[in-house]
Amino acid sequence: MPNTKARIGILTISDRASAGVYEDRGGPAIADTLGAYLTSPWEALRRTIPDEQEQIERAICELVDRDGCSLVVTTGGTGPSPRDVTPEATTAVCSRLLPGFGELMRTASLREVPTAILSRQIAGLRGTSLIINLPGKPSAIRTCLDAVFPAVPYCLDLIGGARLETDPNVLKAFRPRT
Amino acid sequence: MPNTKARIGILTISDRASAGVYEDRGGPAIADTLGAYLTSPWEALRRTIPDEQEQIERAICELVDRDGCSLVVTTGGTGPSPRDVTPEATTAVCSRLLPGFGELMRTASLREVPTAILSRQIAGLRGTSLIINLPGKPSAIRTCLDAVFPAVPYCLDLIGGARLETDPNVLKAFRPRT
Amino acid sequence: MPNTKARIGILTISDRASAGVYEDRGGPAIADTLGAYLTSPWEALRRTIPDEQEQIERAICELVDRDGCSLVVTTGGTGPSPRDVTPEATTAVCSRLLPGFGELMRTASLREVPTAILSRQIAGLRGTSLIINLPGKPSAIRTCLDAVFPAVPYCLDLIGGARLETDPNVLKAFRPRT
Repeated sequence: MPNTKARIGILTISDRASAGVYEDRGGPAIADTLGAYLTSPWEALRRTIPDEQEQIERAICELVDRDGCSLVVTTGGTGPSPRDVTPEATTAVCSRLLPGFGELMRTASLREVPTAILSRQIAGLRGTSLIINLPGKPSAIRTCLDAVFPAVPYCLDLIGGARLETDPNVLKAFRPRT
Repeated sequence: MPNTKARIGILTISDRASAGVYEDRGGPAIADTLGAYLTSPWEALRRTIPDEQEQIERAICELVDRDGCSLVVTTGGTGPSPRDVTPEATTAVCSRLLPGFGELMRTASLREVPTAILSRQIAGLRGTSLIINLPGKPSAIRTCLDAVFPAVPYCLDLIGGARLETDPNVLKAFRPRT
Repeated sequence: MPNTKARIGILTISDRASAGVYEDRGGPAIADTLGAYLTSPWEALRRTIPDEQEQIERAICELVDRDGCSLVVTTGGTGPSPRDVTPEATTAVCSRLLPGFGELMRTASLREVPTAILSRQIAGLRGTSLIINLPGKPSAIRTCLDAVFPAVPYCLDLIGGARLETDPNVLKAFRPRT
């Protein structure tokens, strides 16, 4: 789809942020990072919801099925606390999971904090969309996106999503010659 | 719960050790290692059982639900042999799994032996308790605990378990400032 | 089983290769690599089938149950594309999975291409056989086999499969003294 803006859902999952008692810093951190990476036209669809599995599932489905997002990036709700249910919601709405994303994001975060192993973050596919869970903390968000985003444009090519181009001085995307 | 002893279950899973034909070296290795790490009061609840899935499930449930263990550490039964069923039993009694533990324990063990990839060890949560599978071999036990234990005290904080303090000269636990 | 040839299934999974519109390069790459590793007698059972989950499941079952392969190595069908269903088929016919294989193969491939995280390749056990998914690309096949094969002979020992011996100048297999 040349000359079409890629749509990217940015979903903040936080009881406190959705209640307004806490400023959402995860969503803006994702938007800033993607803005630095991407040179092809795109637009962000941002939403903030509480840590409720049903609402997370519905939000992902709406961003993908109704709004046509090729990529949905979540922030928050991936830890071991009882209220953390983002991976469960993501698993429920994806037809298949890509375990390499979670593995690599944990490995990258481990270089910064030993508690990275507590994150249950995953990634998966729903139709022609890729869903990626990120942690809630802005610095961890950047670490995780820097680790996995080089593979994201080619992944969208393979599943029939939007074509993304990146600024190679910021983030070098990799497309194997096939 | 200040001034309360944290309870930690140490569960040796081995047909031979439970039949008395083989000295249990895994359980003592875990107790020694935790003794070296921990400065806060704790007590070990030790049991030895055969490689029977139903008995493993029951033992974990009793240690958590009846005895109030905040942490249960198993040794043995994580390999590919048909009798190895510890991960299956652990999965069955946990409400959620923490894949980062197994990934990191295998990565750490791989620096020592290439057969580390044969271990199916996992970790998961049951209520306010963390369950961690360790290998059977004492040297591998230490390698795995050294790798993941820095994240254990904060994990217990997040799920509402006992508060653990470690000797930073032996093992530096990490608690992010939140 | 001394003086018995170990049987190894090599299963190429590709719509194009099975239709004859594309030369199968993955199957020969696996056969060449195993030929370089192994010094004990073995024979390859090679098949090429399309990316159809039911056919993949049937082929693995026949290679294991009917033909007595101790090891089945697949190539192709592990990516995120809708036609890629090799991991699903493998999961369906295995009694247990060995997550360390997929983790290590992705880690090894990541040193070469950032898109390694898109591979969903796994390994698992069916009876006394080990099934390993490899990527389709010959160079990635060698990278993955070099990473995991040191643990394969001991894995077959543990599950009751054929005994494999390797040339230590090419690939050093590891068998812990027990």
